[in-house]
Amino acid sequence: MSGVLHAVYRVRSDAQSIDDRARAIAVEQSVEMPISAIDDPFVLAEIVGRVEAIHEVEPGIFEVRVALASQTVGYDPGQLINMLFGNTSLHDDVVLQDVEFPAEIAKQFGGPRHGLQGLRRRAAAGERALTCSALKPQGLSAAKLAELAGRFARGGIDYIKDDHGLANQAYSPFTERIATVTAALRRIAREDGRLTLYAPSLSGDLDTMRRQLTASMGAGIETALIAPMVVGLATFHTLVREYPTVAFIAHPSMAGASRIAPALLLGKVFRMLGADAVVFPNHGGRFGYSLETCGHLAHTARREWEGLRSSVPVPAGGMTPQRVPEMLDFYGADTMLLIGGGLLVARDRIVEETRAFVIGVRTHRHE
Amino acid sequence: MSGVLHAVYRVRSDAQSIDDRARAIAVEQSVEMPISAIDDPFVLAEIVGRVEAIHEVEPGIFEVRVALASQTVGYDPGQLINMLFGNTSLHDDVVLQDVEFPAEIAKQFGGPRHGLQGLRRRAAAGERALTCSALKPQGLSAAKLAELAGRFARGGIDYIKDDHGLANQAYSPFTERIATVTAALRRIAREDGRLTLYAPSLSGDLDTMRRQLTASMGAGIETALIAPMVVGLATFHTLVREYPTVAFIAHPSMAGASRIAPALLLGKVFRMLGADAVVFPNHGGRFGYSLETCGHLAHTARREWEGLRSSVPVPAGGMTPQRVPEMLDFYGADTMLLIGGGLLVARDRIVEETRAFVIGVRTHRHE
Repeated sequence: MSGVLHAVYRVRSDAQSIDDRARAIAVEQSVEMPISAIDDPFVLAEIVGRVEAIHEVEPGIFEVRVALASQTVGYDPGQLINMLFGNTSLHDDVVLQDVEFPAEIAKQFGGPRHGLQGLRRRAAAGERALTCSALKPQGLSAAKLAELAGRFARGGIDYIKDDHGLANQAYSPFTERIATVTAALRRIAREDGRLTLYAPSLSGDLDTMRRQLTASMGAGIETALIAPMVVGLATFHTLVREYPTVAFIAHPSMAGASRIAPALLLGKVFRMLGADAVVFPNHGGRFGYSLETCGHLAHTARREWEGLRSSVPVPAGGMTPQRVPEMLDFYGADTMLLIGGGLLVARDRIVEETRAFVIGVRTHRHE
Repeated sequence: MSGVLHAVYRVRSDAQSIDDRARAIAVEQSVEMPISAIDDPFVLAEIVGRVEAIHEVEPGIFEVRVALASQTVGYDPGQLINMLFGNTSLHDDVVLQDVEFPAEIAKQFGGPRHGLQGLRRRAAAGERALTCSALKPQGLSAAKLAELAGRFARGGIDYIKDDHGLANQAYSPFTERIATVTAALRRIAREDGRLTLYAPSLSGDLDTMRRQLTASMGAGIETALIAPMVVGLATFHTLVREYPTVAFIAHPSMAGASRIAPALLLGKVFRMLGADAVVFPNHGGRFGYSLETCGHLAHTARREWEGLRSSVPVPAGGMTPQRVPEMLDFYGADTMLLIGGGLLVARDRIVEETRAFVIGVRTHRHE
C-alpha cells in the first residue's frame, strides 16, 4: 500500500471474536465486499484495508488499527469522513477513536488560515487568552441583538459570535443583523478605542453561505461561525479555501449525530428533503438494526404523509438472493432490494445469479 | 406558540431528575440560555421550547415531547437538524427519537420528486419491487466497473448504483466512469431490449456535485446516489430542488456519526480542514465531556502537527466568569474562553460582568 491513513477504532468485543470483527471493519471501510470475490491485483494490494494491530485496552474493549489507502480519499473532505467512518458509524460497537493522517493529506487541506496567532493579532490580544461571548437568545430582533453586542463590547470582549441557532429567521434576518451589530460595535469602538470582533453564524447551502460571507466582508467582518457537521465537511472546506481572509470558528453542533433513530433520519427527514429512495441496513445483515427498526423505517418512508410521495425503502447491507422471498414478504412490493456482495460472490456466475435474483423478485407472490 | 415542531427525545434518567432534564433539553434546543435571563415577551411566548409530555417507556428510559417553534428553522435543512438535535447530539443520554413536522414544513421541503412510482416507471417495473446492485470494489478501473455493470444489466437488474465509496479517484474518475458504464448498459439494452438504470455516487461540494449531475444528465443518467449526512442536508436539498428530473437515492453513510472521539473530530479533522477555532463543551458544564477528553481535545487542536497552524480551543457550554482562573490554569493562554449564558444571567449588569470576565482573563497569572 502506498499512501496510508491509519484509523484506530475502539471496538466492544470478546477475545474470540475480535480478529473477525477487526477484519470486517477494515473491509467495510475500504472495498465493502467479500474479499473472496476480489481478484483484481491492484485492489488486493493497494485498496483493501489492512488490520495492523489489535490490543485490548480494557476488558472487552479492543483498539483496532487499520491501514486505509489515501487514494480512496482524493482531495475531498466528505469522502475522507466517508472512508473513515461512513458505514462503521452505523455500528453500535465501534468508536472511531483516532486517525493518523499522512503528511501530504494534512498539508493538502492546509489547516487553519489564521489560527491562534491570527485571531490574537486581530484582537490585539498579545499573548493572552482571547475572550468571546454569544448573541442570544434567538427570537430577539436584530436591534436587540445589536444592543446586546454593544454591551459585550462595552465590557471589552474580544469576540462575539452569533448563537449557532441564529440563521436567517424572519425575526432577525442575516443582513440586517450584521449591519446593526457591526454598527453597534463601531459606535462603541469610537468611544472606547477598541473594536470587538463579530463572528456571524453561517447557514444554508454553499451559495447561501457565500452570499453571507460576501455581505459580512462588505460590513468589515472577517470572522464567521460554522458547524461543519451541519453544513458538510466539503462545503466547510470550500469556504475555507475561497475566503482566505476569513477566520472560521467551528461549532460542534451535530458532532454527535449517531443517536438519531433510523426511522426518523432516513425514513422521515431524508424523505422530506427529497430522497426518492433510502438505502438502509436490513436486519440480519452486517448491521445491528432490528427487524422492528427496519419495519418502522420502511413504514415511515412510504406511509401517507401530507401528500408527499413515498420514498422507496432499500434494505441492504449483506443481503443475499436467498433472502429475497423473506424480504419481500416482510417489506411487500413497495420496496427496492439492493444486493451487492451477495451477487459479486458468484464471480463468473454473476449474470446468472443476478438473473435469479431478478426473477425471484419478478415472480414473487405477495401474500 | 404558532407553528410548532414536536420533537420526541428518549432520555436515560431516574424519575427524580427527568423533569429538570426535559426542561434542559427544551432550552438547549431553542434559546440555549437560562430562561431567567430572558425578558423579551416574544421570545418567552414563541421561541422557548416547551416540554409537552414526559412518560416512562421502560424502567429508567423516558420519552420527552418538546414543542419547538417552526420560526427558528426557516427554510433551511441544516438549520432544521441544528434545532432538532444539534447540541443535544452531544449528550450521551439522549436519542432524538421522532419529530412531528407541521404540514407547512413538510410541504415546503416537498419530499421526493419521483419516489416509488417514479422509480418504478423509469424501470418499467409495473407494481413489483425494484432491483438494484452496486458497482464495487473501489480500486477497479472504470472499464472494469463498466464490465461489471454490463453483467448486472445482462442479468436484467433495474438499477445499479455506485458503491458510496466511489467518488472521483484517480483509478476511476467520475466522468470516465459514467461514460463507460452507460455505454456498457446501452450496449446490453440494444441486445436485450431493456435498459438498466445507473445511479452514480455524488461527492464533493455543491459545485462539484452540480458538475457531476450535469455530466450525468448529458450521459442520459437521471438517478444519483448521495449521502446526505456526508454532503450536508442543505446541500442535498439544494440539489433536489435544482435537478427536478433526477431521482436521488440517499445513502446512510455517517448517519451514526456521534461516536467519533471529540479530540479527533473537533481537534484534528476540523483543524485540518481549516477551523481557526473549535468550540467544544468544557468538562463540568452542560455536557458530559470529561476533563481528560477536553484536555486531549485542546492538546490535539494546537500541538505541533505537520507545520499546520494551531486551532484555538474554545471550551464552552455553561461556563461562568467564576471558572475563568481554573480554566486558564487548565488550558493555558493558548485558548479562547467562551461564556454566553453565564454573562447573560447578569441581565442589567452584563457590561460589568463582561468586564470582570475580561479583566479576569487579562490579569490571570499563568503558572
